Amino acid sequence: MTSAMNWYEDAAVDNSVILSSRIRLARNVRKYLFPARIKNEDAAKLNLTMYNALINERTVLVDAFTYYDLTDAPESLLNELLEQHVISRELAKKKASRSLLANARDNVYIMVNEEDHIRIQTIFPGENMEKAYDMADKIDNLIEESVEYAFDGNFGYLTSCPTNTGTGLRASYMLHVPILAVSGKLSSIAQAMTKFGMAVRGIHGEGSESLGSIIQVSNQLTLGKPESDIIAGLKNVTQQVIEQELHLRQKWIADDHDGLLDRCYRAYGLLKNCRRITAAEALGLLSDIRLGYVSGLFDKPRPSKTIYNLMMDVQPWSIQKLTRKAANEAERDVLRAGYLNEMFC
Amino acid sequence: MTSAMNWYEDAAVDNSVILSSRIRLARNVRKYLFPARIKNEDAAKLNLTMYNALINERTVLVDAFTYYDLTDAPESLLNELLEQHVISRELAKKKASRSLLANARDNVYIMVNEEDHIRIQTIFPGENMEKAYDMADKIDNLIEESVEYAFDGNFGYLTSCPTNTGTGLRASYMLHVPILAVSGKLSSIAQAMTKFGMAVRGIHGEGSESLGSIIQVSNQLTLGKPESDIIAGLKNVTQQVIEQELHLRQKWIADDHDGLLDRCYRAYGLLKNCRRITAAEALGLLSDIRLGYVSGLFDKPRPSKTIYNLMMDVQPWSIQKLTRKAANEAERDVLRAGYLNEMFC
Repeated sequence: MTSAMNWYEDAAVDNSVILSSRIRLARNVRKYLFPARIKNEDAAKLNLTMYNALINERTVLVDAFTYYDLTDAPESLLNELLEQHVISRELAKKKASRSLLANARDNVYIMVNEEDHIRIQTIFPGENMEKAYDMADKIDNLIEESVEYAFDGNFGYLTSCPTNTGTGLRASYMLHVPILAVSGKLSSIAQAMTKFGMAVRGIHGEGSESLGSIIQVSNQLTLGKPESDIIAGLKNVTQQVIEQELHLRQKWIADDHDGLLDRCYRAYGLLKNCRRITAAEALGLLSDIRLGYVSGLFDKPRPSKTIYNLMMDVQPWSIQKLTRKAANEAERDVLRAGYLNEMFC
Repeated sequence: MTSAMNWYEDAAVDNSVILSSRIRLARNVRKYLFPARIKNEDAAKLNLTMYNALINERTVLVDAFTYYDLTDAPESLLNELLEQHVISRELAKKKASRSLLANARDNVYIMVNEEDHIRIQTIFPGENMEKAYDMADKIDNLIEESVEYAFDGNFGYLTSCPTNTGTGLRASYMLHVPILAVSGKLSSIAQAMTKFGMAVRGIHGEGSESLGSIIQVSNQLTLGKPESDIIAGLKNVTQQVIEQELHLRQKWIADDHDGLLDRCYRAYGLLKNCRRITAAEALGLLSDIRLGYVSGLFDKPRPSKTIYNLMMDVQPWSIQKLTRKAANEAERDVLRAGYLNEMFC
């Protein structure tokens, strides 16, 4: 699932508060029952239709797609895809015919027979919401050449959960906000966000903690506004979060330069030398290091991977895959430490 | 006060639980009032007598002594000597004519006009109590050629504080007991010790915490037993403490080898990379590193100084002297970090 040119290796991922820009479109096909009730043979047919639409047909897309039948996929693959934000918890858990189409750059995923029949997801490094939306829109049009979507003149796109009905759009930014996190301001920001119809979540989406000081900001409302307004609203509130983070960061650097420097170098010393480490501690230390690089405080050479990529790599199933060793939690802590030791020079 | 061959650079200091073996003899001169009441001109005369006895006279001693008049010594020098265990708190505070005679190897000190007229102190690396006592005894005899000691046929040597009367001897071992410290067993050991007439103290003697997991074990009783019995008793209880430490250490290594290894390497990572650090934290990390070297877990090259020497160097007045910069506490934390960063390769 990784290649030399995957999106999270783009330098833009490591150079600002915004780690990534994401678009998700939820679509359903008129002629099948919704996923909660679809017959398994219809689900299998839909897998095939999507395979043909994106792989067998000549398309306008440059990207080549790979098809993954997840129907009987091993749990380790599903968990790894979940950690990498490629599939949702729902798709990972579901016991039915389902599939995933992914491109080589790891930034376009189409989930088939998840909560909705079709979910198109695009991810671009840094602030690139327009590109993410354009790509999703192209895929959407391409798929529509092969299927008729469930669409209502009044409501718009129909979805399994009414909160997605209308545009079926969820736009989201992943943000790295270490100073907001350490100053305990995230919960009041999250509260304020809901007033604007936006949600703030931890690194793994709904209900997850903000490990590594990473939050996801996304629209909650999908109905009654065109896509461009939804995205503009998200950009607006995201910009306010970024400004708060950068303002506090400048203040902190002015007030306690030595302390922040110490924090970055200690994180480096631990990542370079620890002999066992949990995913949660590693994420926290990587967050300190990223802050050091972004703020220009930390002058050690950057590792060969982006810090955000390392943040994904240190998660349990990913570390297991990367080190090619089946392991229990204690063994993974040792493998993770070894992996991180080598990443920093 | 430091030279290339000072005692704490001996490899023996870093190779066992015992860091050092120390002897202190308390003596007073018959013809002067005890230090609490001595006239300042008599104190000055005693300084001169001692100077002549150890420096001007041809002696049986190989070592050359240096004379320090501490009467008007700057506070920084007194604090540094205190941190290095060269002088006592009493001598550092006293506002009167007083002096110190020290040899080049930094292992023989004679304090003049402290709590007693004369205190002879000898320090040897590792387990070397016999050598320490022999050296103190030689100095004692040498001084007795120049002065008549206050001595009573029944009580023995008379001292300012009755707890030192008799032999005037305090023998002590400095022990590095990281596992006993972390298992919280030190206070029960200290309690048991008092039954045997022994005392356990922290790194800076009476009332100090056991920073860096270093304790001092010494005899409390000085009366009614010959010197050899006092020393034999101390050796006996010290051996029991050492056995407990080594037993728990073996058990810990067997139970949690990875955890202990991780602890050593993390300490290394922090000492090598931190940008500011307090003396207390530095002592704790140096203790972890020393445990790593002694137990053979830690395979990085040793620093050019012994860990125990570094433990002395990181203390506030020593770091100030070593870096040759006047500094407040915050600045010292930065200087200390820089000093430690360079000590490890």
